[in-house]
Amino acid sequence: MTDAPPQALHLTRSDVEAAHERVRPVVRRTPVVEIDGDEIGVAARVVLKLELLQHTGSFKARGALNSVLRAGTERGVAAVSGGNHAAAVAWAATRARLDADVFVPSTATPEKIERIRGYGGRAHIVEGGVPDAFAAGVPWAAEHGVHLIHPFEQVDTMCGQGTLGLELEEQVPDADAVLVACGGGGLYSGLRTAIAPAVHVVPVEPQRCANLHAALAAGRPVPVEVGGVAADSLGPAEIGATAFQLARADGIEVPLVSDDDIVAARRWLWQRCRVLAEPGGCTALAALMSGAYVAAPGAVVAVVVSGGNNPTIP
Amino acid sequence: MTDAPPQALHLTRSDVEAAHERVRPVVRRTPVVEIDGDEIGVAARVVLKLELLQHTGSFKARGALNSVLRAGTERGVAAVSGGNHAAAVAWAATRARLDADVFVPSTATPEKIERIRGYGGRAHIVEGGVPDAFAAGVPWAAEHGVHLIHPFEQVDTMCGQGTLGLELEEQVPDADAVLVACGGGGLYSGLRTAIAPAVHVVPVEPQRCANLHAALAAGRPVPVEVGGVAADSLGPAEIGATAFQLARADGIEVPLVSDDDIVAARRWLWQRCRVLAEPGGCTALAALMSGAYVAAPGAVVAVVVSGGNNPTIP
Repeated sequence: MTDAPPQALHLTRSDVEAAHERVRPVVRRTPVVEIDGDEIGVAARVVLKLELLQHTGSFKARGALNSVLRAGTERGVAAVSGGNHAAAVAWAATRARLDADVFVPSTATPEKIERIRGYGGRAHIVEGGVPDAFAAGVPWAAEHGVHLIHPFEQVDTMCGQGTLGLELEEQVPDADAVLVACGGGGLYSGLRTAIAPAVHVVPVEPQRCANLHAALAAGRPVPVEVGGVAADSLGPAEIGATAFQLARADGIEVPLVSDDDIVAARRWLWQRCRVLAEPGGCTALAALMSGAYVAAPGAVVAVVVSGGNNPTIP
Repeated sequence: MTDAPPQALHLTRSDVEAAHERVRPVVRRTPVVEIDGDEIGVAARVVLKLELLQHTGSFKARGALNSVLRAGTERGVAAVSGGNHAAAVAWAATRARLDADVFVPSTATPEKIERIRGYGGRAHIVEGGVPDAFAAGVPWAAEHGVHLIHPFEQVDTMCGQGTLGLELEEQVPDADAVLVACGGGGLYSGLRTAIAPAVHVVPVEPQRCANLHAALAAGRPVPVEVGGVAADSLGPAEIGATAFQLARADGIEVPLVSDDDIVAARRWLWQRCRVLAEPGGCTALAALMSGAYVAAPGAVVAVVVSGGNNPTIP
């Protein structure tokens, strides 16, 4: 069997480095904090990368800004999202003095819509779910000659997300592995491109949003049913082609975590660290705490806490 | 007029360094994050020291642990507190395999009491307020031959809190000033001892908890009426003698902030940084955002976000 052309594997660290130079003056260098592995029952050194402190509350700001700066347009940009990508594109466009038109499913919460506006974007509410918003936003962007920024399956988005890895490398130079939640796979792809194989990049999925796991089993991206506590941020029905190709090339076995694991990790982060993350942002930590990912004794494991836009207290 | 013996001024940086060696293996090295001064309308470089991520959710863990380790007892320790000091002593004693008996006013919230127990302490609920809890706890400790750890006016407590300053010095070596909320003055005293005069240490008070401001005006510590949004953590009626002496020696003018300023800072921290601090923990930032403290253009200002134990979302 011959693999499909592995376009993804043409992404290089240099691409991410170029993105880093581009976004570094504006994105936050999010902090890391080391926690005692004993506290969560693991023998590793554990370092949390607190990416929820990023502008707009998630790593999505990195990819959005890189995409906006690379778009080379004065016409503004568009996006389709009911989640973190929406506010990120609004923020990035506003920083670049461009208009942002964001197509939002009517299922999005009022708070998410308010955040798009708060960051300077125009929110177009589309009756229905994410597919309906795409059906409205894609032709609108084409008609208006406006660049549509995809939430994960574009090179500029992935390279932007990967800049998190270059920061992490400076902050935790002895990291053996980095655990990261995987939704569409943009952050995973960017990190893998930026810092593997020196660092083992491990994509983690909720059992109920396991599109990468399903794709690896099927040999190609396939749509899966998604649900559960993290579906708002990790819920694309199908994994991006790039993330699939990279994970297959690396022979990844995806650690899967239950909703209970995610809730327990989220509660621990709040009760013991006063870090209030959204469920998707706690998914990587849940793999470590639940034993779905087992660190080698004495290993140094970085864990990305990727977002904080679900404002309830556990 | 001759000043009272300035015992405080005998505290030295070496004392804080010794405390640092003692507590460093156990306390968290809390992270810092730089934010764009433009975002909050100041021309300075602003670096937040996220001490709310400390064990037990506030800087109090530092002083409590230093005190426990210095107590040289196998008998356990005691404390009187309805606030952050209570959980800190419970945590520190448990880490040192000692009993912690904490006397808590019945006005404390169930969550605060649960946290004492969650960190391994024994909570003695005393009908009434903090003075009633002191009236019960002090004789109990004497009778049982147990060391009572004061929340601010003890050398070991202050030196423990000062370890935050030694970390900050490594993390932000070019800081010109550090803003810190002042309640009893333990953290201010420790920081001042650790890093002044190289860094200008500025104690900030809520208008409604202005015991240091009142003491400087009166020429001695005097009891003041306290209230407002930050009284649960910054509400001692009288400033500690050490903090008073240090502030007077330095000719400090205390920036005062309103409750509205604190609420605005807290909301900004949550909405724009996904950092959920308690009102007392936002008081130093409120001084910068409100203009109560004016940074020199181009200055580097560190701001301590000192606690996160007030779990409501603004």
